[in-house]
Amino acid sequence: MPVITLHDLFMQELQDLHSAESQIIEALPKMIEMADDEKLQAALEDHLEATQQHLDRLNEIDAMFGFLGSEKICEGMRGIIQDGERTLTEITDAATRDAAIIAAGQKVEHYEIAGYGTAAAYAKQLNHDEAGDLLKKTLDEEKKTDSDLSSLAEGNLLATGLNEMAAEE
Amino acid sequence: MPVITLHDLFMQELQDLHSAESQIIEALPKMIEMADDEKLQAALEDHLEATQQHLDRLNEIDAMFGFLGSEKICEGMRGIIQDGERTLTEITDAATRDAAIIAAGQKVEHYEIAGYGTAAAYAKQLNHDEAGDLLKKTLDEEKKTDSDLSSLAEGNLLATGLNEMAAEE
Repeated sequence: MPVITLHDLFMQELQDLHSAESQIIEALPKMIEMADDEKLQAALEDHLEATQQHLDRLNEIDAMFGFLGSEKICEGMRGIIQDGERTLTEITDAATRDAAIIAAGQKVEHYEIAGYGTAAAYAKQLNHDEAGDLLKKTLDEEKKTDSDLSSLAEGNLLATGLNEMAAEE
Repeated sequence: MPVITLHDLFMQELQDLHSAESQIIEALPKMIEMADDEKLQAALEDHLEATQQHLDRLNEIDAMFGFLGSEKICEGMRGIIQDGERTLTEITDAATRDAAIIAAGQKVEHYEIAGYGTAAAYAKQLNHDEAGDLLKKTLDEEKKTDSDLSSLAEGNLLATGLNEMAAEE
């Protein structure tokens, strides 16, 4: 697919997000299994459900424009997940592992905030109101998840901090 | 380096950011060359200078803790840059290419916002005030760059939107 106009770029961004969401759906169950804190586990489970809904919305937009076809792997999300999984396998302490899961989750969210922010701006410029509304809805949910992870991190850091002190004794 | 405590995780996050910043310094000159709009070019040049300063700050923190050694490639940033470069080579229109450069730039910024946000939170929890101040300074600058790119995008989208209309005639 040659990229000439803003419409082409919009299609590319949607493809990229579709690949990113699909990769998150594959990676999340492992994260849920590795999480120790119950609140974190519940938040990740909610997020898996939300991610499925975000993918459904992208499929709805695909029904309008037909951007899928040559599935392009989003290398950015692949790298973020790879970094996260690599770190997690090296951690033996449960609270430290939770802190690493939250950190990886926030990188995932910020990738999506940038991607959906761009796609929503393109949709607006191209007067694709219906697609724009769906993208904006997901964007707002990604921002909310990022802020929820920040709150969880605060509680968790206290726990890992205590472990830290214990380790330094 | 085994990851057991929050301190170990902090060192890992700093390594990751060091690799990310180094990759950005390598990628930015190509983006500057490809950019058409003068304001975008100037913004990217300023950002290259800022990125060098962010790397210097990480080196300052390395002098405190010695986190460097086994250089770990940040795969997240590698993927983000790879996606951006792949898209750019497919674009023939100058204003559309500028839009894609801005979109890639915002993915880079959001990666860094997540990474520096995490590192600054770890520094605070571990009472590393000096390192925390340096990380917070960079975090604020990354947020500012992201918001500057959003403003540039608005002006640029108007231009690409006009091209879009021309292409649809």
